[in-house]
Amino acid sequence: MAGAPHPPIICTVDVVLLTLADGALQVLLARRDREPFNGVLALPGGYIHREDDQSARDAAVRVLADKAGVASPYLEQLETFSGPARDPRGWSLSVAYYALVPLTALPTPHAGVGLKPVDRLPSLPFDHRQIVDAAVQRVRAKSQYSSLPVHLCDERFTLPQLQAVYEAVLGESINKVSFRRKVDSLAMLEAIEGELEHGRANRPAQLYRLRREFRHALSMVDRGLNPRD
Amino acid sequence: MAGAPHPPIICTVDVVLLTLADGALQVLLARRDREPFNGVLALPGGYIHREDDQSARDAAVRVLADKAGVASPYLEQLETFSGPARDPRGWSLSVAYYALVPLTALPTPHAGVGLKPVDRLPSLPFDHRQIVDAAVQRVRAKSQYSSLPVHLCDERFTLPQLQAVYEAVLGESINKVSFRRKVDSLAMLEAIEGELEHGRANRPAQLYRLRREFRHALSMVDRGLNPRD
Repeated sequence: MAGAPHPPIICTVDVVLLTLADGALQVLLARRDREPFNGVLALPGGYIHREDDQSARDAAVRVLADKAGVASPYLEQLETFSGPARDPRGWSLSVAYYALVPLTALPTPHAGVGLKPVDRLPSLPFDHRQIVDAAVQRVRAKSQYSSLPVHLCDERFTLPQLQAVYEAVLGESINKVSFRRKVDSLAMLEAIEGELEHGRANRPAQLYRLRREFRHALSMVDRGLNPRD
Repeated sequence: MAGAPHPPIICTVDVVLLTLADGALQVLLARRDREPFNGVLALPGGYIHREDDQSARDAAVRVLADKAGVASPYLEQLETFSGPARDPRGWSLSVAYYALVPLTALPTPHAGVGLKPVDRLPSLPFDHRQIVDAAVQRVRAKSQYSSLPVHLCDERFTLPQLQAVYEAVLGESINKVSFRRKVDSLAMLEAIEGELEHGRANRPAQLYRLRREFRHALSMVDRGLNPRD
């Protein structure tokens, strides 16, 4: 058959949506409403729609909105997983993405959608465990060098709050002086004029936000946020 | 239609095979022998064969052997490119890979296959220019932190030869002391007992090779090979 010499391959996207809850990195899982694995918790995913989607990324954005109620998160392509055995329907290929959102950007929990800590995952269908593990590894590695974890913060945050987010993502405590130095070299924040957080501490803390140019692109540095620094 | 609710998407792989020639990073291009773009230089690529390939990676390995005569190079997935406009045949998705080989691992130049410097590319069909640029950017970024450029070297090399390879990849000169320190921290090399290179210099130079465990996985360090170091 001209133009399609091989039988069709199943083309899907899957999204690893990460957030921080209870001080831990958690992944959003959605209960599947069709076969295969009907009723089982899985990554939100679905077919690429040739008619609607201008790219695999478009499909990922659509799937996140439809299945998780999340709009315009920070989203990056992770890796493509493929082969004859990963989906019982046949030879399949899934372009996997990861997204980072603050907990407040998630809709209130509803039937069929929930968060699970990445370090205590339930059994997952397809190769979704492998996809989550790859996403967590990528996010941890990239967080050493970049502004990536800021996308887990609310729009306004203090430096101690930001440090706690980095520590939760990296799974290790970070020296405060070293952290401040890296944040400076990333040049990713702007102080919000006149805005202080009045918490329980004696001194009110300055509030910051991500600079506009880094909302959809990362700030990167050459040297990592090494916990040993 | 149950199990295939959408018309098939064209699933292909494309490979950015990089080598060092004349002191510059070069990409292998192959002349296409069919439509679209028949006779035009392009990245070696092709359909994923559902019958033969156990993964997109398998397809990339097969394509490299068939179209470039290259077996078992260092190969990593780059990114998946997709959309309705990138291939005139229709909605398509290409899983792109990059491979690094020493020039000596390439077959002698033959009709239809050639090397082009990545900084002086001819016009390329599809979105192949974008794919090459993404591969070069990835290789340069990763070379800061890892053993990646070693795969451009012959099996045995001296430290000055290795430094020249890193410099060619990064496109910048590197301080010798800083380079030696990074190579030490990567712990990726072993001296070849009793093997010295007797070149034109007065002192013969020790020959090294990549340690076995890093032939298919990278050695990574936290701190980059920053030219400013």
